Amino acid sequence: MSSSSEYPQALAAVISALERLPGIGRRTAERLTLALLDWPEETLSEFGQRLARLRTDVRTCEVCGNLADGERCRICRDASRDQAAICVVEEATQIPTIERSGCYHGLYHVLGGRLEPLAGTGPEELNLDALRQRIAEGQVTELILATGSDVEGEATAAFLADELGGHGLNISRIASGIPVGADLSYADSATVAMAINRRRPVR
Amino acid sequence: MSSSSEYPQALAAVISALERLPGIGRRTAERLTLALLDWPEETLSEFGQRLARLRTDVRTCEVCGNLADGERCRICRDASRDQAAICVVEEATQIPTIERSGCYHGLYHVLGGRLEPLAGTGPEELNLDALRQRIAEGQVTELILATGSDVEGEATAAFLADELGGHGLNISRIASGIPVGADLSYADSATVAMAINRRRPVR
Repeated sequence: MSSSSEYPQALAAVISALERLPGIGRRTAERLTLALLDWPEETLSEFGQRLARLRTDVRTCEVCGNLADGERCRICRDASRDQAAICVVEEATQIPTIERSGCYHGLYHVLGGRLEPLAGTGPEELNLDALRQRIAEGQVTELILATGSDVEGEATAAFLADELGGHGLNISRIASGIPVGADLSYADSATVAMAINRRRPVR
Repeated sequence: MSSSSEYPQALAAVISALERLPGIGRRTAERLTLALLDWPEETLSEFGQRLARLRTDVRTCEVCGNLADGERCRICRDASRDQAAICVVEEATQIPTIERSGCYHGLYHVLGGRLEPLAGTGPEELNLDALRQRIAEGQVTELILATGSDVEGEATAAFLADELGGHGLNISRIASGIPVGADLSYADSATVAMAINRRRPVR
C-alpha cells in the first residue's frame, strides 16, 4: 500500500486490489487502473456497480451446481440437451471449456472440488447427494468423469466410479495424453508416460 | 457479447468490459472475471463501488493538473518540494514514473497533451495559461521539459522553450535515454533518472 503513495488514495486502492488477481503484477495493475480512469465516467460507474453486484447476480444452478442467471443454469433449462448423459467436473468454471469444444451435448454436474484428504476434503464436502438423486431418477445412462488428470483428480474419479457404479450406468473417464498440436519435446514426463501407457491400436 | 453465451449474463458483461482494457484478451478477461468471482462478497462489492466512484474521487490539481485527492495534489501541497523548479509533462499519469526515479524534488505541470497539428491539437488545447501564470509569479527559475522523445514531444518542447523563454528562466530538456517513441509511463526508473540527470540546456 505504502508504495502506492505516488497516486491519489482512490487510485492506489484500485491498483492494490487489481494486484490481487492472478498474473497481474504491480506495473500491470497500474496500467489497467490508469486505463480504467480513461473510461467515460458512466461506463466506469456502470462497470463498478456490476462488479459490486456480481456475487449476488451470479447464482448456482440448483440442479447441477453450474453458474446460473436464475434458479437453473442455461444448460439444465435447455430441453434439447441429451438428458441421459452427465459430465462430472470439479468446478463450474471448467464447463465453458468443454462447451467450447462443441462435442458434448449432455448435462453437467459440478462437484465443487475433489477429494483431498490431506486438505480435509472428504466425500461429504462434495456435491454428491444431488448427483446420486439425479441418477436415482433413472433417466441418466451415461456418466463422464472429467475430474483432473492429477493424483487427486484420478482418485476422485476412481471413488466416483466405485460409488456410483452398479446402476446400469455407462461410466467413462476423459482421455489424458499429449495435447493436440503440442510438441512432444515440451510435454512433462507424467503426461508422456500416460500417453504411452494408454496408447491405442491404430489398426 | 454473443460469444459470452457459455456464461451467465452478469459474468459475460464483466468479461466484455475487461476485454476493453489494453493488453487484455478474451481468455485473460475470462480468467480475471472468474478470479473476481472467487473474492469474498464484501471485498468484491467494496472494490466495485470504489471503481464506480473512481472518476469522482480522483480529481485534478487546480495548480498543476496532476491527479489529486482534493483541490491540490500531494506534490503541490508539499512545502518541502523545490518551489523554484517545474517539470512539464504531457500527462498526469507520467508523474509517478518520475517520482519513482527519486531524483527530482521540484513541482510539475501537466500539459494535458502535446502539439499534434494533424490531430488538431494546437497550443490552445494545452494547459498553458496556468503555466504562464505560475512563471509570472516569479518564484520559478527552472523549467524541465519532459515531453516525449518522439517527434510531437520534441516539437512541443521546442514550442515551449520559444514561448516561455526570456523570463530569466533556466530551461532544459530531459536527456535522450528514454527510448524514442516509447511512452514515458512505461520507462524504468534508472532510465528516467538518467534522462533527468543528463538534461541539456535548450538555449
